[in-house]
Order: sequence, then C-alpha cells, then structure tokens
Amino acid sequence: MINFKQIGIIHSPFENRESMPIQPCFAEGAKGRVVLESKYMEGLKSLDGFSHIILVYQFHEAEEFSLTQKPFLDTAEHGIFAVRHPSRPNYIGISTVKLIAIDKNILEVENIDILNNTPLLDIKPYVPAFDSYPEAKSGWLETKITK
Amino acid sequence: MINFKQIGIIHSPFENRESMPIQPCFAEGAKGRVVLESKYMEGLKSLDGFSHIILVYQFHEAEEFSLTQKPFLDTAEHGIFAVRHPSRPNYIGISTVKLIAIDKNILEVENIDILNNTPLLDIKPYVPAFDSYPEAKSGWLETKITK
Repeated sequence: MINFKQIGIIHSPFENRESMPIQPCFAEGAKGRVVLESKYMEGLKSLDGFSHIILVYQFHEAEEFSLTQKPFLDTAEHGIFAVRHPSRPNYIGISTVKLIAIDKNILEVENIDILNNTPLLDIKPYVPAFDSYPEAKSGWLETKITK
Repeated sequence: MINFKQIGIIHSPFENRESMPIQPCFAEGAKGRVVLESKYMEGLKSLDGFSHIILVYQFHEAEEFSLTQKPFLDTAEHGIFAVRHPSRPNYIGISTVKLIAIDKNILEVENIDILNNTPLLDIKPYVPAFDSYPEAKSGWLETKITK
C-alpha cells in the first residue's frame, strides 16, 4: 500500500456524477474553488503566472472498479486504462483547469469537471511544453468528441 | 490517509535523478517499458488506438518534501505547486509519453522521463480535447523552455 494524504478540498457546482460534465473541455465556464490547507500555502508561490493548473485528486465517490467500462461517450466496452472513468484500480483523477485567481490558500478556477467536496492530492503547473500534444491520436474517442 | 496500490512497474534507462531528463519533452527517443501486473491486463483493451498515454506513478526516490524548491530550470525558489519537482506533499508524478506498442501486459513507450523501477499507479489515455492547451501560459517557466 502507498499512502497519500488529503491536502485540501475542491468545491464545484456538481453534487453528483449525473449533473457533471465529463471533462473540463465540456465544462466551459463552470467555476470551482480549491481550498488548500493553510499549512501548504507557501507552496503556491509563483503559481499565479500560470494560466492553467493540473489538479490531482481522489475519485472519492467512485464505485468498485471494473477492468472494462462502458464510458459516458460510447456504447462499447473499453479497458479501464483506455477511458477516464473514475472506477479505476487506483481512484486518482487528474484535470487541467483554468486558474483565475489565488487569494492566500484559495484558488478560483474555471472549466472544472470535478465533484463538490473532492479531496485534493496535488496541484501541478500546466506547462504546454510538457503537457500539450495537440496532434495526439485519441483512439476510440477520435470520432466522439470535438473540442 | 488515502491508500493506493502499485499496479505495475516502469522501466527506463535512468537509474538516478542526475542522469534523467527533467520532462518527456527533453527525453525525446528515451525508451521505456511499463509492465502492468497481469491481473490488470484486460484493462488495456482498446488503449492501442491512442498515440500518447498519461502515466501516473509514485516518486519513490524523492526526498522529504519542502514547500519551496529551486527547480532544475531556475536559480530562484518557487512554491512546490508551481514546479514539477518530485519532493511534493504527495509523491505523485504524471508524465505523458508516446505509446509505441502493447504486447499482453507490457507497454513499450517513448520519450520517458521516469526513473527505472518506478511504481505505477495508473494509466490514462491522453486525449488532446481534454489535455492539450498549447496556448497556456507557463509563468516563470515561460522563458526557460522551448519545446
């Protein structure tokens, strides 16, 4: 077992899976608030220069995982590692959201696709040179979505 | 405490931090191999259509975390949440790598920036519509890197 700790909480307008956009790109404008435990506040130094951040969190309301899933966007079954469904062997979620403002230990974000009261595990700066691959092929999702 | 489990292991040519590229974009061509525990093999179904995948892993050799860090690319100190340094409150790493081939429970990948024998926590499909923000501003890193 590998232990991680909750370092904050993510607030959003989404109280349950049914009301939630499935990814940030479908959540345009949805506003959220990340409340970092104040003891970690110093860790936010110079984050304000980034327009986007990656939130790493626990899928705290996910059901028991299954190795194949029929995802929201398809009627066929796919392997759990080929979908972004929350019911994974490890309940870790990652979402890139827009960073609007930082006030002390509170981050205002936009385009959030995360359930209200989700436990926060990490915040990473989004860096296009590391994270952006606009030409990547997205397999079974290729024909299902347009940004 | 939130418990996660190791689901596989990541092999790479990098035996220590000193020999390692700091991000996949600097690791062009570096080949790695992800060995998923065979009991999770079914979870790889239809992943082969994706050109890139996101590996989620434990920074298993990171030192005790510190809330500010002088990152590899700068001489100034930044908050830990504004850098991708491994010594974080939770030792979770994420890297987007190129998927070359899948053979049963083994994935051949390229452009890897991960230490040899790193514990694997999750594999997610990289989807440009969700993950690619080429115009994002990267704060203090803006002038330090070009892809």
